[in-house]
Amino acid sequence: MDKQNIFASLPDDLTLEVFEPLVDTGAVLIERIVSKAHRTPEGQWYDQDRNEWVMVLKGEARLVFEEGEVVHLKVGDHLNIPVHCRHRVSWTSEHEETLWLAVHY
Amino acid sequence: MDKQNIFASLPDDLTLEVFEPLVDTGAVLIERIVSKAHRTPEGQWYDQDRNEWVMVLKGEARLVFEEGEVVHLKVGDHLNIPVHCRHRVSWTSEHEETLWLAVHY
Repeated sequence: MDKQNIFASLPDDLTLEVFEPLVDTGAVLIERIVSKAHRTPEGQWYDQDRNEWVMVLKGEARLVFEEGEVVHLKVGDHLNIPVHCRHRVSWTSEHEETLWLAVHY
Repeated sequence: MDKQNIFASLPDDLTLEVFEPLVDTGAVLIERIVSKAHRTPEGQWYDQDRNEWVMVLKGEARLVFEEGEVVHLKVGDHLNIPVHCRHRVSWTSEHEETLWLAVHY
C-alpha cells in the first residue's frame, strides 16, 4: 500500500497554484491544491459541474460567494460548495502555503 | 455557507469509535472517524464494496492488510484502499484521539 503525506513534497514553484489529483475516477476527484497569495481574478467565478467539499489543511484562505457572503477558512475548516454555486478565492496567505483538500463529487 | 472545523466537537464518549458523515450522496460518503485505542477485533476484516481514500488528521494508527503488510499512519499520511481489499485497524493511539478523514467512492 502506497502511503503519501499530504504535507510533504510541496512544490518549489508557486508562480501558479498547483492542483494535484490524488484520486480521479472521472466521477470523483480528490485533489490537493497548493496556493500562496493566489486569488481568483476579480470578476471571475468558479461555476462547477460537480459539488465540491473542501478543507484547509495548512495556511488560511477566504472564499467569496456570488451573493456576497465571505467565508474565512483556517486550518481544519471545511465546507460544502453545491454544484453551480458561484464562488471565488478572494485571498490566500502570503506568508505560507495554503494547502487545500478538495473532493469533487 | 456553513463551515465546520474537523478538529472541533470531538465526542466525549469514545467507548465506541464514532463515525460522522460529512457528505453522503449514496454513491459517495465523506466521513470523519474518531478513534482512541480502538482496533478491529482480531480475525475480523473490513471488506468494502467501495474504494476508500483515507487520511489521518490527528493521532496515529496502524492498518494491516490481509497479505500481511502493515502501514503506520501519522498526521497527514493518506492512502487509497481499493474495493474489497481486506484490511483491519490493528492499533490507534491510546494517548489522544485519532481523527480520520475517509472518502468512500
